Amino acid sequence: MITVPTLLIDVDKCKRNIHSMAEKARRSNVCFKPHFKTHVSHEIGEWFREEGVDAITVSSLSMACYFADKGWNDILVAFPVNILEAEKINYLAKKIQLSLLVESEETISRLSENLDSPVNVWIKIDFGYHRTGVDYSNISALTSMISAISGSKMMHFEGFLSHSGHSYNARGVKEIMEIHHDTIKKVLLLKSRFISEYPGLKISLGDTPSCSLASDFSMIDEIRPGNFVFYDLMQVYIGSCKPEEVAVAMACPVVAVHPERNEVVIYGGAVHFSKESIKDSSGRLSYGAVVEDHGSGWGDIIENAFLAKLSQEHGVVSVPSELCNRYKPGDIMKILPVHSCLTASAMNEYLTLDGKKITRQ
Amino acid sequence: MITVPTLLIDVDKCKRNIHSMAEKARRSNVCFKPHFKTHVSHEIGEWFREEGVDAITVSSLSMACYFADKGWNDILVAFPVNILEAEKINYLAKKIQLSLLVESEETISRLSENLDSPVNVWIKIDFGYHRTGVDYSNISALTSMISAISGSKMMHFEGFLSHSGHSYNARGVKEIMEIHHDTIKKVLLLKSRFISEYPGLKISLGDTPSCSLASDFSMIDEIRPGNFVFYDLMQVYIGSCKPEEVAVAMACPVVAVHPERNEVVIYGGAVHFSKESIKDSSGRLSYGAVVEDHGSGWGDIIENAFLAKLSQEHGVVSVPSELCNRYKPGDIMKILPVHSCLTASAMNEYLTLDGKKITRQ
Repeated sequence: MITVPTLLIDVDKCKRNIHSMAEKARRSNVCFKPHFKTHVSHEIGEWFREEGVDAITVSSLSMACYFADKGWNDILVAFPVNILEAEKINYLAKKIQLSLLVESEETISRLSENLDSPVNVWIKIDFGYHRTGVDYSNISALTSMISAISGSKMMHFEGFLSHSGHSYNARGVKEIMEIHHDTIKKVLLLKSRFISEYPGLKISLGDTPSCSLASDFSMIDEIRPGNFVFYDLMQVYIGSCKPEEVAVAMACPVVAVHPERNEVVIYGGAVHFSKESIKDSSGRLSYGAVVEDHGSGWGDIIENAFLAKLSQEHGVVSVPSELCNRYKPGDIMKILPVHSCLTASAMNEYLTLDGKKITRQ
Repeated sequence: MITVPTLLIDVDKCKRNIHSMAEKARRSNVCFKPHFKTHVSHEIGEWFREEGVDAITVSSLSMACYFADKGWNDILVAFPVNILEAEKINYLAKKIQLSLLVESEETISRLSENLDSPVNVWIKIDFGYHRTGVDYSNISALTSMISAISGSKMMHFEGFLSHSGHSYNARGVKEIMEIHHDTIKKVLLLKSRFISEYPGLKISLGDTPSCSLASDFSMIDEIRPGNFVFYDLMQVYIGSCKPEEVAVAMACPVVAVHPERNEVVIYGGAVHFSKESIKDSSGRLSYGAVVEDHGSGWGDIIENAFLAKLSQEHGVVSVPSELCNRYKPGDIMKILPVHSCLTASAMNEYLTLDGKKITRQ
């Protein structure tokens, strides 16, 4: 029985999401190196293995250690090398095939001084997101970085990696595809400049919106989407999935009902959902969308019923007046989270619809 | 050595914050029942015991169990009773002096049916925050709730409890004091209505802004501030503390520097800071303020250096151009968090300035 805020996982939906992305990668003839930062769970990782996945992406060395301990031997840490963790890098590089990400000559040089075992190195490219990476048009910087990597005995230059995170700001298929096509155009320019000198050079891309909607990946070598394993309300809004593909939902006890202001108060706050929000189609700030309660699982999104405010442990849900009487203290309300990666990180475990716990790192 | 995002605690500042609030409660002759949801640490709890505190507030039954196991015998759970956790309530009520919070007749009735051991019961009052609670002017609802509590063998009516959370939206001493005075005025009205019938009736209030700035608590019986133990950037902005009173700071490795856009990228993202933000005085969204690095601790806030964007593990810090060259990959950047309660919950442990780990629940 659910008595406290609980993150439910619909295993069938989750496995369908994994299968569908793996299938798309197979059809497109690209390597599928899924990002495991969304689920960070050994057990969910095994569902990827059943789809033939043997190389994965993570966002920290600590996650890499967790999955290496669980038998994953080919791991890319898609986060700029943190040279302060050289010891952990060497530990992993000795144990598995470790791939790292760099974005400055300084880091390459310090990495080179500190490495005891061989690693693969990707250069992070900025195709327009402007978070990290070398601008794709900065050929001189890229040339000297590649030569610094190639000059190190412990580093093998793999290629160029990017994350088009600006697709998360897109709304609708058209905008996402524009970002994807813009990225692909820039990829081709970059590749044409370096491919003759480095014929093995690879291109790795991987945001969930583009990977969910695009179908032609013929000019790239690998995709690294992560969020698609669960999807979430933000992806529904962006247009990269349907509401019924979202594979996780929060189940929260109702503790108060305030019909005078059409509000239901739940046990479930910022420490459970995270404070990620979106503006819904009416411009209202939302931390989650209420869904119909269907037995142990959940159904459709209930229109105009959304998580409007969050404090540490309280959530205030705004509901249409006719719905206010449907809920009373002691009920469970189910809510799709805005950003499943952050909610799953805050909750740190999952409950399947048949009542089994799935742990995380 | 710090190699990953780390939450530093300055023990001296923290103990000064505790002492200063305990001293104010003593001077005002009110019971000091500090909210432990901010730190959720047995060890930090002991610093309160040294100030004579023996009754505490928490926001969940799970926290109450943690502190009961550590020898706290008088615990108020300042969150509307979640009737689904009746079993945990009975476990605690048998072990310690447990105080609970109710805000509807329905919950009182279900609690009454389920209790095996005596508890103290507070009624949650809404003095203007409009999150939970019975409106202070709804005398008929209050009358029937008190009589339902008094009619139950296992419940003892303690009094009226409120949280003026709207003080968090205030800016400056004047606005906070207006909210405090408005609350006190309403408290007096409410008390005068019920005190002759219930002479033992108590009033409990407790938001950090009001408790930090007000000095007259003569018409109330107890205060329950929590955040003041650490304070944070939000409290600095509100005006309830000085920057040098903030007792926690994040220490994050620098992984990239982008002088072309005056940005420093740190290892430290939403899973470390939480996604709580404030608008600074220039209207810019900020997730934290960069401070000077002073040995193992930190110094003043650096003007115009703030955490501008957060993704799961990355933080993008906006810095003035002249500062961009001061940071390089491998450095540690120190940042005051916007909301210490959420950052501490996300980080789940503290590091003292002399390198000792302090654990949480």
